[in-house]
Amino acid sequence: MLARAAPSPEDIAVRILRGEERALARLITGLEDGEPWASSSLRALRSDSASHGFSQVVGVTGPPGCGKSTLVDKLIGIYRGRGERVAVLAVDPSSPFTGGAILGDRIRMQSRAAGAAIDEGVFIRSLASRGRLGGLSRATAQASRALEAAGYGVILVETVGIGQSEVDVARLADAVVLVAMPGSGDDIQTIKAGVMEIGDVFVVNKADREGADRTVREIRSMLEVAADLAAGREPMAAPDTLVGHHAFAPARGGAHGSPSLPPVLKTVAETGEGVAELASALDGLWATSKAGGELEARRKRGAIAEARALLSERVLDELEALEGDLEDRLADEIVRGEREAAEAADLLFDSIRKGGRT
Amino acid sequence: MLARAAPSPEDIAVRILRGEERALARLITGLEDGEPWASSSLRALRSDSASHGFSQVVGVTGPPGCGKSTLVDKLIGIYRGRGERVAVLAVDPSSPFTGGAILGDRIRMQSRAAGAAIDEGVFIRSLASRGRLGGLSRATAQASRALEAAGYGVILVETVGIGQSEVDVARLADAVVLVAMPGSGDDIQTIKAGVMEIGDVFVVNKADREGADRTVREIRSMLEVAADLAAGREPMAAPDTLVGHHAFAPARGGAHGSPSLPPVLKTVAETGEGVAELASALDGLWATSKAGGELEARRKRGAIAEARALLSERVLDELEALEGDLEDRLADEIVRGEREAAEAADLLFDSIRKGGRT
Repeated sequence: MLARAAPSPEDIAVRILRGEERALARLITGLEDGEPWASSSLRALRSDSASHGFSQVVGVTGPPGCGKSTLVDKLIGIYRGRGERVAVLAVDPSSPFTGGAILGDRIRMQSRAAGAAIDEGVFIRSLASRGRLGGLSRATAQASRALEAAGYGVILVETVGIGQSEVDVARLADAVVLVAMPGSGDDIQTIKAGVMEIGDVFVVNKADREGADRTVREIRSMLEVAADLAAGREPMAAPDTLVGHHAFAPARGGAHGSPSLPPVLKTVAETGEGVAELASALDGLWATSKAGGELEARRKRGAIAEARALLSERVLDELEALEGDLEDRLADEIVRGEREAAEAADLLFDSIRKGGRT
Repeated sequence: MLARAAPSPEDIAVRILRGEERALARLITGLEDGEPWASSSLRALRSDSASHGFSQVVGVTGPPGCGKSTLVDKLIGIYRGRGERVAVLAVDPSSPFTGGAILGDRIRMQSRAAGAAIDEGVFIRSLASRGRLGGLSRATAQASRALEAAGYGVILVETVGIGQSEVDVARLADAVVLVAMPGSGDDIQTIKAGVMEIGDVFVVNKADREGADRTVREIRSMLEVAADLAAGREPMAAPDTLVGHHAFAPARGGAHGSPSLPPVLKTVAETGEGVAELASALDGLWATSKAGGELEARRKRGAIAEARALLSERVLDELEALEGDLEDRLADEIVRGEREAAEAADLLFDSIRKGGRT
């Protein structure tokens, strides 16, 4: 690849505000690569634009095969039907070499969403892991802010992975849709494994398959138990019953239902069934969170998490610059049983604080 | 719960070296809770014992429902048959309230493994998420070192989660077994999502089900493509074919096979079929890694990762102690578009280095 000269940060910002998609794409690539000009450009873009809190950032996540892409596809159609400009960030935390293929899927998706022609009101971009740990979620957060400043009313952030990536996306989204499908119970297990807390809306997709209603009930039961535990009440379903694959607690009657539980919706993304209801649920969340100050609080928590992630990277850089291979020596001592890791961490911290002077 | 006085670190260490399981259990609880006495005790234990590199630490991980627990159960049987003392750490990174149930499973598992009576040569312990992020993998690493010093020849670390936890376990294990099962292709997807790199042995469990051979071939193809890419060769299967659920590359002939690819084994844990072969593969890895110096290198990488995780926690503590709510102020500025996160991180770093003097 030919190296290109770094563009002028102000120029890129001005072109993005004029609606030039190519400038936006270039900025996002720069952010992904951690280019200093891109960071300056993002800052210029955001200070020129008065759009903070303009866009709803929606995370869409769930296990592989649950139909997230088709669901996102159909959501795009609904938002476009209202004249909203829509951006999609497809985040792939898996090995770097799958990035290209996912981008290929996305291009197909866009052509479906827009008919034969490319739709100017839809911006689709995939972000794959490159470079160091944490780089991906940082690039996603920054790209999402760039898209907001560029005037996309809805930003859909779809993760192609599982586990940590879901939690990372929750950090930067204003609302998170957790997608499951009817079936073996494994999908429910997947949702349970540490990510249930991040869902604002739950969707059972492929709801024309057998077992959809049972899956909805299972998710509701889990949400009720979690809410009871969070409120310090004895749950009606014993926590044990959450672990066995088929031993879920029975659904509870409306009298016990809490109005604050997240909605659990059924969709058939292939046919579009239920997708309008999902969009409505998201609209409702957006209105409530803007009115109640929750939006700002949530974005603030996201900003703190992002600054902390960058701080960690900075600390790692400092570690590597320490004289005398201190980290390496300490690691040898840990392996030989001469030192515990906690003590090593304290020594490293003191060295960093002293600026590498040993 | 009644508060207990902190035990003497030396006393606990001596009792563990004498073989008292209760002292070992107490130490692990102390490590899990981050108690200072436990850390001192671990240090005393390790300096009294000459067992560094004595135990093989084997991580067993894979998606929910793939039969990990049964496989671990059968491995215990094989190791006990040789007279080896075996410890199991069942790591549950999901919500804290599932911990009890998993421990329940473990107790059932132990009774299965040992017949009707409790087997003194098997130590089983579940570790659940409590407290702050990273606490779980730290406790697991420390518990694993305590078990080595206590003389357990094999330490099986089983994760009940998916995603990040697999990567965390890989860090502290001497060998990692990645378990999948025949089926929809989703399990393969799960393995692909960023964790394939950590597997030293691949197991297709429930191999009496339809599709087991295809799953084995799929995993082999992925490993070959990954190896080709790592070696800078053009892969024979285009990377694109790795993404579609059913569009895997055909298995390649032996002529192209690399001898360094990890083994892919079939097991039926329920009946014990194939488990002896898995144990042999692990024996082979253990012998090779001890002889070739890979064991020490791997443990050293683990020690570095652990020290870095602790260093991060220390940095967070310092952040919270900064005067004038600096982090909070900066987060507000990020949300309002007046500052980018990278700049905020630099300011936080400088403040920490100055020791909180603003």
